Amino acid sequence: MSKKPKEALEELGKGLVKDVLSNKQPKMIVPIRALSNVTFNKKTEMLQLGGKSAERNFFNVAHAKKFLQTLEVAAASKNLLEDGKHASLRDVFYMVKRTIPNTRTNVVDEQAESDDAIEDLELLTEQSREQLNINANKMGSVAGHVVIEDKGDEINWSKMGSGGWSIPSNVEEITFKRVRAKYVIYMEKAAVWERLHEDKFWDKQNCIIMSSQGQTTRGIRRLLQRLSIEHKLPIYVLADFDPWGFYIYSVLKFGSINLAHMAESMTLGTARFLGITADDIENYGLKKHLIAFKDVDVKRLEQLQNYEWFADNKQWQRQFKLMKEMKAKAEIQALSSRGISFITEKYLPEKIQKGEFLE
Amino acid sequence: MSKKPKEALEELGKGLVKDVLSNKQPKMIVPIRALSNVTFNKKTEMLQLGGKSAERNFFNVAHAKKFLQTLEVAAASKNLLEDGKHASLRDVFYMVKRTIPNTRTNVVDEQAESDDAIEDLELLTEQSREQLNINANKMGSVAGHVVIEDKGDEINWSKMGSGGWSIPSNVEEITFKRVRAKYVIYMEKAAVWERLHEDKFWDKQNCIIMSSQGQTTRGIRRLLQRLSIEHKLPIYVLADFDPWGFYIYSVLKFGSINLAHMAESMTLGTARFLGITADDIENYGLKKHLIAFKDVDVKRLEQLQNYEWFADNKQWQRQFKLMKEMKAKAEIQALSSRGISFITEKYLPEKIQKGEFLE
Repeated sequence: MSKKPKEALEELGKGLVKDVLSNKQPKMIVPIRALSNVTFNKKTEMLQLGGKSAERNFFNVAHAKKFLQTLEVAAASKNLLEDGKHASLRDVFYMVKRTIPNTRTNVVDEQAESDDAIEDLELLTEQSREQLNINANKMGSVAGHVVIEDKGDEINWSKMGSGGWSIPSNVEEITFKRVRAKYVIYMEKAAVWERLHEDKFWDKQNCIIMSSQGQTTRGIRRLLQRLSIEHKLPIYVLADFDPWGFYIYSVLKFGSINLAHMAESMTLGTARFLGITADDIENYGLKKHLIAFKDVDVKRLEQLQNYEWFADNKQWQRQFKLMKEMKAKAEIQALSSRGISFITEKYLPEKIQKGEFLE
Repeated sequence: MSKKPKEALEELGKGLVKDVLSNKQPKMIVPIRALSNVTFNKKTEMLQLGGKSAERNFFNVAHAKKFLQTLEVAAASKNLLEDGKHASLRDVFYMVKRTIPNTRTNVVDEQAESDDAIEDLELLTEQSREQLNINANKMGSVAGHVVIEDKGDEINWSKMGSGGWSIPSNVEEITFKRVRAKYVIYMEKAAVWERLHEDKFWDKQNCIIMSSQGQTTRGIRRLLQRLSIEHKLPIYVLADFDPWGFYIYSVLKFGSINLAHMAESMTLGTARFLGITADDIENYGLKKHLIAFKDVDVKRLEQLQNYEWFADNKQWQRQFKLMKEMKAKAEIQALSSRGISFITEKYLPEKIQKGEFLE
């Protein structure tokens, strides 16, 4: 990703113009984004795209619409870059949605089409959509002894009251001015973040606490990654003892199938799972708070067991096996049954000190 | 709500002890929370609870468990208040979840039971659950020319970079140090907030911008209400042209059935709907971006039409009628088809200047 976004877009356009001027059919070569073309690189520990690609030809009836869609989102992105503005995926959908003159065909009918074209554009230009000024969802909060600069403002993450700093969808332009932390804890639940924040866990333990509410947004993933790479901080993932909690860790650490082409800028080699484990259920007396599995949980667990990147990992296979025997899951918040601050005063410090995390 | 939370809890407990000591059956009188006991007060323009209440008796087999649950959450809340800590609804569930000695009965099996007991406790003590140190979800961001103090930190909402300040679940203890704004715009979509923020809308228009992502949390509602009451700011609600967008406004302005007992501290008499209207579809050329209704949309719209608080409102009934004729809805982001900053440069300033909002 050494090219600049605007140059990359122009290069794409110039290549097509050259095809036209030399009487050749305009075409794009797009790497295939599907499980069949995704492999796990054992060395880098990342999911990555294989070498398979498809040609997209302008004069092929089956390709023409996708061809147009890709160019339309490229044009939208170029306008955004020139105006110095950012749009959401939904905005881009509306920006390119129009009826092609003298036809009844729309450039796009569903957002899935423009989203798809944007992912293709990422591959064609080797730019993330954030670099193309197209933002994902905004979500999450952060606190810690960190000072950043963003849009000319100096923001001190340790002086944000009870709310914390709200993480933007795009963190590419943030600069870290001062980072005083030994590690980062990322949790999936905002309520758990509020617990850690109220107990000043980040101050007492000298760490950064970060959370989303629901899915891990791309903004959060990139922020974690930048802290991991630029400041060499280990990232602890605090999630539930269930297949979905495990999967949150899996995506953060190894990447996901959809974003295999972005693995480099999205995965977290330093991620460690600090959430509830089968051993914790025993050690911290959480048996009474197990929640019985449904069929869908069993299925998801079996998928995890079979993922290439977990296949040779004994630690993880042991957890999968124990969970399968229990036929049950448990939430982080079950720790509240031991006292509201049990998590910050005992559970987390003890596990971190003993190095009881999964990798 | 003049009593202090801890005193209110103690009063509840002392009343029960008194019953016991005088050989009377311990009982609680709990107002009924159901549509049948909710009325719309035309004068205050709020949903409110009627006078119906139910007796809960300790020695009634059908009441005993609920009685116990209410006391258990009261005890949990008292501990939280004494420790100066806050818990989420999920935490409280785990805090009170245990097996009653020598039985196989749990105090609570599902979170719905403890949630219910907490709502009863709100009624019995006349304290909001936030005042009882039980927090709702955390969500949302805010920016504007406002300085607040929270937990000893001074936070300037105009110096928060691209992220904004992250709104906590509980805003009761925030103090406003400086508020320079003519109004507040609240929007349901974080992506729209990012658009307004990037365009410095709050700076150019001298307003506060606030958003959630999905549901409007209680923290956001209270923050809007405090700005409305303490600083006399009108609240503009920027939502989609669809029954759900209209309902967001309805809940903010008039309250909701579930929270009718909290109407005073939750409703926003100054709320105005600034979202997409049937007229906007015409005036701003959005017809092409209408999304056809599904059955569920029609049903929801008919419910809205029949709500007591909309029944005599000609403006709103006209919108409902026009939407029903169109059989279609439209999103705020459809405005992006007119240009990425059309919303901040033309749509919003024009509508606010002309007073084109619904009340």
